[in-house]
Amino acid sequence: MEKNYFDIEEYIHRVHSFHGHVAPGVVIGGFMVHLAQARMPEGVLFDAISETPACLPDAIQLLTPCTVGNGWLKIMNFGRFALSLYDKYHGNGVRVFLDPVKLEKWPEINAWFFKLKSRKEQNHTDILSQIKQAGVEICGIRPVQIKPEFLKKRDKGKIAICPSCAEAYPLKDGSICLACQGNSPYVIPDAP
Amino acid sequence: MEKNYFDIEEYIHRVHSFHGHVAPGVVIGGFMVHLAQARMPEGVLFDAISETPACLPDAIQLLTPCTVGNGWLKIMNFGRFALSLYDKYHGNGVRVFLDPVKLEKWPEINAWFFKLKSRKEQNHTDILSQIKQAGVEICGIRPVQIKPEFLKKRDKGKIAICPSCAEAYPLKDGSICLACQGNSPYVIPDAP
Repeated sequence: MEKNYFDIEEYIHRVHSFHGHVAPGVVIGGFMVHLAQARMPEGVLFDAISETPACLPDAIQLLTPCTVGNGWLKIMNFGRFALSLYDKYHGNGVRVFLDPVKLEKWPEINAWFFKLKSRKEQNHTDILSQIKQAGVEICGIRPVQIKPEFLKKRDKGKIAICPSCAEAYPLKDGSICLACQGNSPYVIPDAP
Repeated sequence: MEKNYFDIEEYIHRVHSFHGHVAPGVVIGGFMVHLAQARMPEGVLFDAISETPACLPDAIQLLTPCTVGNGWLKIMNFGRFALSLYDKYHGNGVRVFLDPVKLEKWPEINAWFFKLKSRKEQNHTDILSQIKQAGVEICGIRPVQIKPEFLKKRDKGKIAICPSCAEAYPLKDGSICLACQGNSPYVIPDAP
């Protein structure tokens, strides 16, 4: 595919199928990923960071080889609508963000993004239409360099059996697994 | 599709395309998700938890409507190879895990999972062949109930502009955004 061409309609089709609905954030994310990818040199193996768990991870997973499960996409929850692609070995890359100043020209996107209208007042068609018109115009892009400590591949180390739940876990987490240490989201079924 | 039928070859094809390679963990994850899904009552809207960021999130994203970006899949890094699907409103569901005792019958899977062989010594074809043979036999399944505090939808609250980076962030995070509070993975380009 031509590097500078982004087929938004084909992408929206895939968003619907993967994300379940055509969320404004995933559509904007598509333009953002496209912009970032176009700036990466050909043939560079890159990793990705999403600075929010909302929407952007799906745009990255749909448009790049980076997924959560293969470890090439990391989510750092800063609550910022921004993503980075960077050389997985050297850490140099680009960061693309939604620029609040540029949003002022697009009232529907602006109202959606800053939650100035209730869900009921928002018109999904109008928001999407402005997003498609705006494209990468509402984004900012900057070169970034990832700190070396974030480039290291995490090694789980030795695997042991947790004496509490009898399941495998990374021994470096302690003498019992992190879930048994009190972080479990489950009500224990036979607890009183 | 017939609820109790799992087309492993078709799934492996999709794993290759999405995850980038046919990782043993994603293939096992396919059987695990299939097992969990078959136990969920028809028509129930469910959310998912992956207890590891490795591999399982991709199996969940490929086989269920739950993705990281739509918020229906949450990753809790306990380092356990386990996942849960649960009624998004009531929290009742099932948890599927890899059972170390059942793995003893499958030496190639066991050696891969417990890292008993180096990468070089592992034979990917043999591991995959045992995984396909074993199917759901190496899994355990238990009913679970999610604690009510994990069922709440997180609200970002009011959006503000960070006076440090000039980007939008959730005001509840503080007077500047979490990245500017010192958690950023980026080397600031114009720092000395």
